[in-house]
Amino acid sequence: MNGFIALHCGAGYHSDSLKKEYQRLCHTACKRAVEALQGGGNAVDAVEKAIIELENSPLTNAGYGSNLSWDGLVECDASLMNGQTLHFGACGAVSNVWNPISLAKQICIKQCESLSLGRVPPCILTGQGAKSWAERMGLNIVDDKKMISAKSFRNYKHCKRKLKRYSLQNDIQFSPLDTVGAICVDSNGIVASGASSGGVSLKHEGRVGQAASFGSGVWAVTSRDGIKPSIASCTSGCGEHLIRTQLAKNTAESLLDTSPVLGLDKCLKEHFLESPFLWDISEKLGGALTLIFNPQSGEGELLWGHTTKTMCIGYMGTDNRKPKCTISNLPQKVVTGHKAVVSGIPFKVSMQPCPVLEWELKTDTSMNGSL
Amino acid sequence: MNGFIALHCGAGYHSDSLKKEYQRLCHTACKRAVEALQGGGNAVDAVEKAIIELENSPLTNAGYGSNLSWDGLVECDASLMNGQTLHFGACGAVSNVWNPISLAKQICIKQCESLSLGRVPPCILTGQGAKSWAERMGLNIVDDKKMISAKSFRNYKHCKRKLKRYSLQNDIQFSPLDTVGAICVDSNGIVASGASSGGVSLKHEGRVGQAASFGSGVWAVTSRDGIKPSIASCTSGCGEHLIRTQLAKNTAESLLDTSPVLGLDKCLKEHFLESPFLWDISEKLGGALTLIFNPQSGEGELLWGHTTKTMCIGYMGTDNRKPKCTISNLPQKVVTGHKAVVSGIPFKVSMQPCPVLEWELKTDTSMNGSL
Repeated sequence: MNGFIALHCGAGYHSDSLKKEYQRLCHTACKRAVEALQGGGNAVDAVEKAIIELENSPLTNAGYGSNLSWDGLVECDASLMNGQTLHFGACGAVSNVWNPISLAKQICIKQCESLSLGRVPPCILTGQGAKSWAERMGLNIVDDKKMISAKSFRNYKHCKRKLKRYSLQNDIQFSPLDTVGAICVDSNGIVASGASSGGVSLKHEGRVGQAASFGSGVWAVTSRDGIKPSIASCTSGCGEHLIRTQLAKNTAESLLDTSPVLGLDKCLKEHFLESPFLWDISEKLGGALTLIFNPQSGEGELLWGHTTKTMCIGYMGTDNRKPKCTISNLPQKVVTGHKAVVSGIPFKVSMQPCPVLEWELKTDTSMNGSL
Repeated sequence: MNGFIALHCGAGYHSDSLKKEYQRLCHTACKRAVEALQGGGNAVDAVEKAIIELENSPLTNAGYGSNLSWDGLVECDASLMNGQTLHFGACGAVSNVWNPISLAKQICIKQCESLSLGRVPPCILTGQGAKSWAERMGLNIVDDKKMISAKSFRNYKHCKRKLKRYSLQNDIQFSPLDTVGAICVDSNGIVASGASSGGVSLKHEGRVGQAASFGSGVWAVTSRDGIKPSIASCTSGCGEHLIRTQLAKNTAESLLDTSPVLGLDKCLKEHFLESPFLWDISEKLGGALTLIFNPQSGEGELLWGHTTKTMCIGYMGTDNRKPKCTISNLPQKVVTGHKAVVSGIPFKVSMQPCPVLEWELKTDTSMNGSL
């Protein structure tokens, strides 16, 4: 299978001292996704594999090493949207699941099956229930402590101490950094999007953010007719603001504008920076990694935009020898949270014959057995 | 304070034998909301009071007497949206909280406050974390068993037995009946929407449905300029389908069409019955209770539409002596889940001077102290 993967390690602030490490991580994650495609996996599999790599790293605020909650626990959100089935699977505030993105994928896949007595498979599972579902699916369940990295524990202690002594606003330690996401298009023309986040530091137990909310963290719609383009988006930033602005759905749909880059720029302005839903927020921190793809020509555009200081991005096509990893910067002198920078690159995928709707259900169910 | 309240006890199937009881319940709930307005409460307070009454009744699948989960527990979803602040508060899969709607209201209100160290107040809380937040807010916390009614327990036993013996599809006992919701406009022109649901019978622990998902269960947008109309909507039906179709947001926005009734009808067709997001669902069960309001004239339209057999509705203005309660029926011979019926009535509210944006924050914070 051919395809193109793009991923990010968060819109936020990536310090100079760690830039190399972030880029190395993006590099490996891109390679994992491309290996999945080359091994016959589809866009959904590739997105999962990329995000697993990002979750496993203590650098990111996703899976292992996530920010700790008020009670000192790791509680993760993750979601995955399959652009062809339009199914969305999400887990929220889940502990002990080593790879929350795999749980989100399982929940997504299971929606192709029907339960006894006409019950409808869930699309969002949270807390203990999400964990017990993951257990039944045979996913890797670990002890609370196994999810905590040395760095996240230090940061937790630091924040708690600070909270006792001062009441500082907008401390960088609390900024919702390092949420991860990935989007992919494969040579069957299927697009998929995934996101994973540990949420904000010292969050209240049970809090659910954008990565588990429909339309906010991920969006993917595969062309139904092979003529209209396919679109995908994943977002990063302050969860509550991304929920209120449904930024994944809005940014993805903005690409259908005559010019995708102008569409995205306008969207970040109108639907985020000037959104009536954020009228009471002075600093609007967010970013989106998006793609638009023409299944007839196999040509697409990867676009990203953010209002944060930096956004760390990696991408790779199955035809490329190695991934490209870059840190996008807001121009100097521009105040974060008040303006967006938008950038992008074109890409191409060698296409296979377009699949039909009947076909996909079988694929999805067979993927199910493969885990 | 003047105003107009409308509420529903679910889009589903209301048996003839219980119709009187449902209507009586709607009657009381409308009165509670009107009392709240007359006592100086705003649209948010009125919606809360109406839904508390509906939650407290064993007739509805919300709060006390909700459907039991697979593990025999009551796990509730509820949300509230304030059309003026555009804040959304939701709790998902929460047990032991006697009135989930009051918790949703608290979460909504708290978004007007900022936390120390620049942390953002949550908009969605789930499970144990939602319960502990409710405790801190001083809400009524009860034992697991106190939430279970004799009827819901009997139904649970019946379903579990059935599941053992047969594997019947589309059993009526599993249909997502009796989710409740309310919308209100007050004489300051503020609109609000609330929803509360116990979810589908035998649901998996931790499952979150439309009543805790942004854009799906509730929507309310107050006119910003006093010229554009205010809109509100609350939905009922199969949670997963309402999430995928974002039915509350879509139905509310459809009212901005030249003709609200045609707009709603078209929306239920295009965004629900023929939605690409429900391509794999044969029977699409849902309903929406909506209103559009012109703050200049004080005139509005209450509209409802559903694809289910029945929808039970009540409404009342502060000028009316008593509420109207009606059960809307899908025309005979129309197959449920395949066509929608849309209906409505006009209403009028005696207006007070229009509030300004600065004003609302103060109101919200003062409401905070009133609970």
